[in-house]
Amino acid sequence: MKAFIAVDIGGTQIRVAVFPEQGTTPIQQQRIRTVAEGQTAVERMIGLIEELWPTDAEVVSIAIAAPGFLDPKAGVVVTAPNIAGWVNLPIAEIIRSHFHVPVYLGNDANLAAMGEWHFGAGRGYSDILYITVSTGIGGGLIAGGHLVEGAHGMAGELGHVMAEPGGPLCGCGKRGHLEAVASGTAIARYMAEKIAMGLPTVFAPGSTPTAKETAMAANQGDSLSIEAFNRAGFYLGRAVADFLHILNPELIIFGGGVSLSGDTILLPIRKSLEEHVISPEYLKNLTITRTVLGDDSGLLGAFALMLSKLEQA
Amino acid sequence: MKAFIAVDIGGTQIRVAVFPEQGTTPIQQQRIRTVAEGQTAVERMIGLIEELWPTDAEVVSIAIAAPGFLDPKAGVVVTAPNIAGWVNLPIAEIIRSHFHVPVYLGNDANLAAMGEWHFGAGRGYSDILYITVSTGIGGGLIAGGHLVEGAHGMAGELGHVMAEPGGPLCGCGKRGHLEAVASGTAIARYMAEKIAMGLPTVFAPGSTPTAKETAMAANQGDSLSIEAFNRAGFYLGRAVADFLHILNPELIIFGGGVSLSGDTILLPIRKSLEEHVISPEYLKNLTITRTVLGDDSGLLGAFALMLSKLEQA
Repeated sequence: MKAFIAVDIGGTQIRVAVFPEQGTTPIQQQRIRTVAEGQTAVERMIGLIEELWPTDAEVVSIAIAAPGFLDPKAGVVVTAPNIAGWVNLPIAEIIRSHFHVPVYLGNDANLAAMGEWHFGAGRGYSDILYITVSTGIGGGLIAGGHLVEGAHGMAGELGHVMAEPGGPLCGCGKRGHLEAVASGTAIARYMAEKIAMGLPTVFAPGSTPTAKETAMAANQGDSLSIEAFNRAGFYLGRAVADFLHILNPELIIFGGGVSLSGDTILLPIRKSLEEHVISPEYLKNLTITRTVLGDDSGLLGAFALMLSKLEQA
Repeated sequence: MKAFIAVDIGGTQIRVAVFPEQGTTPIQQQRIRTVAEGQTAVERMIGLIEELWPTDAEVVSIAIAAPGFLDPKAGVVVTAPNIAGWVNLPIAEIIRSHFHVPVYLGNDANLAAMGEWHFGAGRGYSDILYITVSTGIGGGLIAGGHLVEGAHGMAGELGHVMAEPGGPLCGCGKRGHLEAVASGTAIARYMAEKIAMGLPTVFAPGSTPTAKETAMAANQGDSLSIEAFNRAGFYLGRAVADFLHILNPELIIFGGGVSLSGDTILLPIRKSLEEHVISPEYLKNLTITRTVLGDDSGLLGAFALMLSKLEQA
């Protein structure tokens, strides 16, 4: 029997799943915290892979979904701001030399797009825009039936496009990016600012609700919370219109915590998209939906990457 | 002997070239005006193809580069604003039923990108951003060694991304698009406005210089003309930074009349690009260059399209 080991590493947790050749149900899977005293994240990742290593199956390959900037071709994490010490880390070579099987590396959002394409909301489509809206905004692109990684694996940074020149500071250090006006963090910041200004809302003066709390208040009719989501949706729709003009996808998949608020965010996105698109042709055969794999999209994307490498070989 | 017939149709002229299987030098080529009394553009196109039809070679296929919105898969021109009556025109089927060979259709800017990739500045690259800046702004994308057409062939509309919210009216009817602030038309409009306001310049009061005349004046040190190009370059660089974040190309090719002004436009583009990119990694292995095929990129792109269809068959 053949087995494939998928790894999804983030700032908070490391997940490892062992997949059989058929189906998408792992033979084994486990998650541990990324950070622990006396161990590096790489040591913990290796330990967890060893623990789950199948004794009755031949491991074909290992694929790692990682955050930050990385060079998938070189197998190097250039910078991963959420994982201490991961700068120019040749992670693929480290893991390969330990386990002696081929190791592939991919950006977590790109692989999430790949996962949705192979196993989730994107099955059967060739041109897909995957956009995840949570604390940050990231994305992954499928164009003409191929994952768009870019020359050095840095494609799909959909949160870092100009949304409002001179606007709020973005996590990347630039101003006015989509992530700075439409992420969960941006929604929470907008609420804190307006509450501090004394605008009418169900939230107590001086409170700092999260995006999730804001979504719940919006659902109960709180006008400030509705306005916070309308504003984020306006910017998301305007940016997505640009993405349509650039890429002309047939499917948009929204992932991430903010998309869980459903119509609270999706309706303003659609309204803004219709307002900003240059031709109704872009919307005519366009489906807009939400992730079906949720948190598993990274692991399943890593698995899909290994299957596609097998086909290419 | 085998022959391939490439057609490039625009609002002003129709060009037809007959290519042999090897090399990029046409066996025959000719151009005529698109508009003439008593004939439709389609009739003129058919007439010119008939005229150049080789008697001593077998025509493998015909490929047409056309402007506007089109659906390459269906072979239909949806709208071509510069060609009268071209609305939902099944041009591929019309030409196929007349000449009884396979007919392919492509957006002119997408095919220009394809031409540069196969025969021009893009040879040997896999991830290319082609951007043409003339009266309008258009583009074509190569990602991972594949032309990005989008689900319905409407990808690459790089002129219609938001550059300045609330900014000048764009040809498409929306405000603030890149084309509305950085095309040759936008440069000329900026000059006319500033001259009308009485700003110091070599141009006479009330004059309305073209982008080309503005470029010449900029080269001779006219400060208003330099400012007009700096402004266009600022917007182009900021938009290209977004394109890098989305697509991470290794090569950018500038085409179109405005790019002929060389450093007058390229230096401000580079400056703005360096200012707006979120990581120097995007620029590290990035080459920025100009088209080498110039006006022939559409014809050669149509030829490249036919060769690639032959490989797929």
